[in-house]
Amino acid sequence: MYYPEPISKLIDSFMKLPGIGPKTAARLAFFVLTMKEDTVLSFAKALVDAKRNLTYCSVCGHITDVDPCQICSDKTRDVSTICVVQDPKDVIAMEKMRDYQGLYHVLHGAISPMDGVGPEDINVASLITRLQDERVQELILATNPTIEGEATAMYISRLVKPSGIRTTRIAHGLPVGGDLEYADEVTLSKALEGRREL
Amino acid sequence: MYYPEPISKLIDSFMKLPGIGPKTAARLAFFVLTMKEDTVLSFAKALVDAKRNLTYCSVCGHITDVDPCQICSDKTRDVSTICVVQDPKDVIAMEKMRDYQGLYHVLHGAISPMDGVGPEDINVASLITRLQDERVQELILATNPTIEGEATAMYISRLVKPSGIRTTRIAHGLPVGGDLEYADEVTLSKALEGRREL
Repeated sequence: MYYPEPISKLIDSFMKLPGIGPKTAARLAFFVLTMKEDTVLSFAKALVDAKRNLTYCSVCGHITDVDPCQICSDKTRDVSTICVVQDPKDVIAMEKMRDYQGLYHVLHGAISPMDGVGPEDINVASLITRLQDERVQELILATNPTIEGEATAMYISRLVKPSGIRTTRIAHGLPVGGDLEYADEVTLSKALEGRREL
Repeated sequence: MYYPEPISKLIDSFMKLPGIGPKTAARLAFFVLTMKEDTVLSFAKALVDAKRNLTYCSVCGHITDVDPCQICSDKTRDVSTICVVQDPKDVIAMEKMRDYQGLYHVLHGAISPMDGVGPEDINVASLITRLQDERVQELILATNPTIEGEATAMYISRLVKPSGIRTTRIAHGLPVGGDLEYADEVTLSKALEGRREL
């Protein structure tokens, strides 16, 4: 089969991305040929810049182009609350909500003995250091509602308990717009357990 | 909402690709951060190379990095047959089959009065020029089995008729591995119409 080399290389590159198979990769590569040269050049530049200029914040572990990150260095934010998440994408999900004004701490993973990930493999040590700051009053554990996320939240809450800082866990229940009929039993049981006075 | 600029630019670039919305774009952009720098650099290079080094073959209109393209300049191919397709991707689909040894002609579109695409907007003129070559004996019309593709095939076959060159149309029928039960009526009717002696 004959493919001109430049296009086959581009297809190979697209195929390295998650969820992109040979057909989609070929479709994307052919689409690139129809794009304006400027757009393609800025795409290429964006790839290199993202890889080269992004680093992890030395304070919270969030992805950033300046260190400490814009959230950590924002004086208007509430330093008394730290929200612990597994992934930089989770910070972005939280920020989209626009409701939370505290700081973050990104673990970059969750404890998972099955995958050989222990507490020392995630970004917990620097969290404990941050808690030395007397201004911190609450730690919100917003790890994912999975076995690994729950285990991690449990681990951190036990670790923090002696310090007397309040640790909370985000609520589990039915997602807004969801349907009771299609909810799984565990979610339903958590929703019932977490019921509140109206 | 806070996104470091390099990543938001990369997300924007991914969103320009077809079928990639904001969520997929963010997922791909974050994946790029986990890739090796070498891989990202060669991805960026592949993008620029594909855009800059690929051109259309001056003979057949297929996408190529050398002009005329490798198929047109391949001495072992059968110059008596030209297969007319709508798109460079169709050439690749045909080549994957490995059964066809003739040449190609890429129209880069199909006649579609609804979209304002007339015969002068597709690569037909150079096809007529190619047919002056006395060695050409058959023109296989392999445009898509859609209204536009059929209209284009019909148009070309009428245009070529006076020259006495044999024009054929690829068969329409049930795809191999398909199911009679799920075939639409038009396909079924074409399959019946095109039935052959066993």
